[in-house]
Amino acid sequence: MPDTTLPNSWDARAKQNSFFGFTDLPSINERGTVILTHGEGPYVVDTEGRRYLDGNSGLWNMIAGFDHPALIKAAQDQYARFPGYHAFFGRMSDQAVMLSEKLVEVSPFADGKVFYTNSGSEANDTMVKMLWFLHAAEGRPNARKIITRGNAYHGVTAVSASMTGKPYNSVFGLPLPGFLRLTCPHYWREGREGESAADFLARLVAELEEMIAREGADTIAGFFAEPVQGAGGVIPPVDGYFDAILPVLRKHGIPVIADEVITGFGRTGSVWGCESYGFLPDAIISSKALTAGFFPMGAVILGPELSDRLQRATDAIEEFPHGFTASGHPVGCAIALASIDLVLNGGLMENVQRLIPRFEAGMAKLADQDHIGEWRGRGLMGALEAVRDKATKKPFEGHLSVSERIANTCTDHGLICRPLGQSIVLCPPFIMTDAQMDEMFDKLSAALAQVFAEVA
Amino acid sequence: MPDTTLPNSWDARAKQNSFFGFTDLPSINERGTVILTHGEGPYVVDTEGRRYLDGNSGLWNMIAGFDHPALIKAAQDQYARFPGYHAFFGRMSDQAVMLSEKLVEVSPFADGKVFYTNSGSEANDTMVKMLWFLHAAEGRPNARKIITRGNAYHGVTAVSASMTGKPYNSVFGLPLPGFLRLTCPHYWREGREGESAADFLARLVAELEEMIAREGADTIAGFFAEPVQGAGGVIPPVDGYFDAILPVLRKHGIPVIADEVITGFGRTGSVWGCESYGFLPDAIISSKALTAGFFPMGAVILGPELSDRLQRATDAIEEFPHGFTASGHPVGCAIALASIDLVLNGGLMENVQRLIPRFEAGMAKLADQDHIGEWRGRGLMGALEAVRDKATKKPFEGHLSVSERIANTCTDHGLICRPLGQSIVLCPPFIMTDAQMDEMFDKLSAALAQVFAEVA
Repeated sequence: MPDTTLPNSWDARAKQNSFFGFTDLPSINERGTVILTHGEGPYVVDTEGRRYLDGNSGLWNMIAGFDHPALIKAAQDQYARFPGYHAFFGRMSDQAVMLSEKLVEVSPFADGKVFYTNSGSEANDTMVKMLWFLHAAEGRPNARKIITRGNAYHGVTAVSASMTGKPYNSVFGLPLPGFLRLTCPHYWREGREGESAADFLARLVAELEEMIAREGADTIAGFFAEPVQGAGGVIPPVDGYFDAILPVLRKHGIPVIADEVITGFGRTGSVWGCESYGFLPDAIISSKALTAGFFPMGAVILGPELSDRLQRATDAIEEFPHGFTASGHPVGCAIALASIDLVLNGGLMENVQRLIPRFEAGMAKLADQDHIGEWRGRGLMGALEAVRDKATKKPFEGHLSVSERIANTCTDHGLICRPLGQSIVLCPPFIMTDAQMDEMFDKLSAALAQVFAEVA
Repeated sequence: MPDTTLPNSWDARAKQNSFFGFTDLPSINERGTVILTHGEGPYVVDTEGRRYLDGNSGLWNMIAGFDHPALIKAAQDQYARFPGYHAFFGRMSDQAVMLSEKLVEVSPFADGKVFYTNSGSEANDTMVKMLWFLHAAEGRPNARKIITRGNAYHGVTAVSASMTGKPYNSVFGLPLPGFLRLTCPHYWREGREGESAADFLARLVAELEEMIAREGADTIAGFFAEPVQGAGGVIPPVDGYFDAILPVLRKHGIPVIADEVITGFGRTGSVWGCESYGFLPDAIISSKALTAGFFPMGAVILGPELSDRLQRATDAIEEFPHGFTASGHPVGCAIALASIDLVLNGGLMENVQRLIPRFEAGMAKLADQDHIGEWRGRGLMGALEAVRDKATKKPFEGHLSVSERIANTCTDHGLICRPLGQSIVLCPPFIMTDAQMDEMFDKLSAALAQVFAEVA
C-alpha cells in the first residue's frame, strides 16, 4: 500500500483533481489509487514499482500488451510523417484511405464503407443516427426505436448508455424513451426452473416477436447485439440464439448491428464474433482491439446493403452532416493498420487459438469448487460467477462485495482482474505465454481461496 | 486535378470505402477528394505533391501546425514509455494525474476536478449526463432541459447534436425533446430593422427570462455557450452579452457551461474565451487545441462548486457509472502537457497576440468590398460574410453555392479555408509567420475577386 496520507503522494494528487468514473470509491478511499508508469509485455508497473499481470488487457483492448515494439514504431513513424488531420470536406490522410480498404477487406462483407469515430460509444451513437437518418429518408420517420438486450453494454454517451442494459444508468434518468430491452440470453441465470435451453431460446424468440407486434415493426430502427456480451459479465448467448432470432428480424426488415467493440479482431478465436456464431450482420461496430488500445478509435463498418442505401439517401441531400474532429486521425489509422497486421499476419491470432484450450481448462478447474456457480466465455474472454450456493445459484449478500474483494485481493497478489456484478472477468492479452497464463490462474486461485474462506 | 478516372487513384480508393461526413458531395464528385500525406509547418501536402496553406488549422485544432517537433517528440517518447491505459477502477497513468493538475492550474478556477473523454462531443454529452445525475441526486429529477443558442455547435453525438443549433440536424429527427434554443446573439444578422445593439441585447435577456418562466426554472439542467460561436460561423456575441445574461441564469440557479472546444488555449487572445469576455462559468468543456490536434481528447473541467456537489452526489452511490475506454490515455495526456507548455511558455500565445492586429487588418481590408456584408471574429478566428447586397444584407442565391465556390477556388490556389453557410471562415495556426498570414490573405483576396466576378 502506498502511504496515501502524504499530501504530495501520487494518490493524493490523483484524488485532488480527478473526477473518477467507473471506480468503486470505497475501495480507493480505503486502499488508495494505483498510478501506473509503464508496462512490460502483459504487465503494468505502478509508481511504487509494483508489477501487475493485467488479466483484462487494460479494458479488453490492449491485446498486444503494454510495450509492443511494432505498434510503438508504427505510432512513432506516423507522428514523424503526419501527426494529425481530419476527414471532413473530402480531405483525409492516405492512412485513412488505406485503413478503410483494409477494414472492408478483413470484414465479413463482400464490400462496404467505413465511418470513423473516436470510441465505441461514438460508433454506436453514430450508427443510431445513421439508422434514424436512413429510415426517415426512405419514408419511415417513425422508425426510431432501438432494440438491445439486458446486460448489453454499448457505451456511455446518452444514447449508447440508453442502449446499455444495466440498471446503473437510472441515476442519469436513462434510458431515453424508445430504447427497448429484450431478455439477456443467459440461460444459466435467466432460464426458469425446469426450462430446457431449447425452451428458453423459444421463449426469447417469442418475446422478440411479441415486442415487434406490440411496438409495430415500422417503429423500430434497428437491433444491436454484442456476439458475446462483454461488460455485462461475459455472457455468450444460449446455443442457437442468433440462428433463431435473426430470421425474425429479417422478416420485419430490421437492420442487425453487431457490436464487435470487444469481440472484433480475434477475441473469440475468429476475426469477428459474428463469424464464431455464424451470422452476417448489416453493419459492424469496431473499437478497442482495432488499435490494440494504442489510440482512441472506433469505426462503423457498413455492409454492402446499408452502404448503398445510406449513400443514396445522402446523395439526395448532398452531405451527411455528421463527423468528429479526429475521425480518421492518421496516427490512429497507421496504428490500426499495424495492429490488424500483427493480429492476422504477426502471430497473435495463432497464439489466441493456441491459448484457448489452456484458458478453458484453467477456467473449468477454478469453476470446480463450491462457490463458483458457472464459468462461461468464448475464446479468450471468460467469467467466473461467485455464488453462496451452487445448487440454488443463490448469490452472496450484496454487502459482502464479494467480487470487489476478490479483485482487490488479486491486485494485492499482482494480478489485475475485473469484478462485474458477482462475477470475475478475465480477458487476457493475445501475447500471453503459457507461463503467464498459468501465473494468472494461480494468482486468481489463491485469491478465490482466501476470499471464500473469509465470506463462507 | 488528379485523374479521378483511374481505378487505383487515391480518389477512387477513397470513394470506394469511405462514407463521407461533413463533405459537400457535388464538390468531390466534380473535383475529386484531396488525400494528404504530410505537413510542413502550417502547410499540408497531398498525394499529387500539391501544398496547401491550411487557414483553418485542420479543424480549428492543429494550432502548432503539422510537424511541430516538440509535440512529435512528446508523443514518441510517451509511446516508448507507456502506450496505453485507461482510468477506470481507481487506476490511471501518471500522465493523467499530471495533466489534471495542470488543467486545473491553468483554468480560471481556484480548484476543480477533471474528467476525460475522446472528443468535444463526448465531453458535452458527459456534461449533460453529469447535470442530469446531479439534479436528480439533489432532488430535482425533472431538471433535464438544456438551453443552447441558435448557430451553437456542441458536437455530433445524438445529445450534443441536439444542443447544436443548426437546421441540418433535422435529417436525424433531432433535436431530441427538451433541448431549448435561444436566439443566436449575432447582432448583424439577428438584429431587427432599426434595433440598436443595446435593444437587441435587451430582447435576448427578455427572451431568456421568458423561456425560464415558461418552462419552469426547476425543469432546466443547464446553459451551454461557446464564448465565440465557432462552427456556426464564427459569431462573437453582441457587446455585453454574457454580463447581461449570466445574472439571469445565476438568479435561477442554472449552471453555466462554457464550451471552449475551439476557444480554449489561446484562440481568442486569452487562454480561455471566457476570460476574453470576462465571465466565470461553472465548468469548461475542452478539446481540439488541448492536444493541438495530435490526439483525440476532450475534458470536462469542473469548477469548485460543481466538483463538490458532484463528488457528494457520487459518494452517496459509491461510483459514478460513466467513462470511456481511452479516457485519460497516457499518450494523449503527455501530448496535452507538451501542447499547453508550448502555448503558455513556448511562445505560441505571444505569437497569437502579435498576429491579432495583422489578422484584424487583413480581414477588415477584405471586408471593404461590395459583396462582403461584414467581417466578424475575435483573436485568431474570423469570418467574412458574402452577400449579394451589402446595404440590405441580402445573401447570394443558394443555388450559387457561393461559399463552397470561394473555398474550392482557394483550394485551387493552395489555400484551405472553410465555407460555413454564406461565410468563409479563417482560423489560422498559432505558429504562422507574418509572411504566411499575408499569403493567406492574398490568396483569399484573389479567390474572392474571381468568384464575385463570376456571380455578380
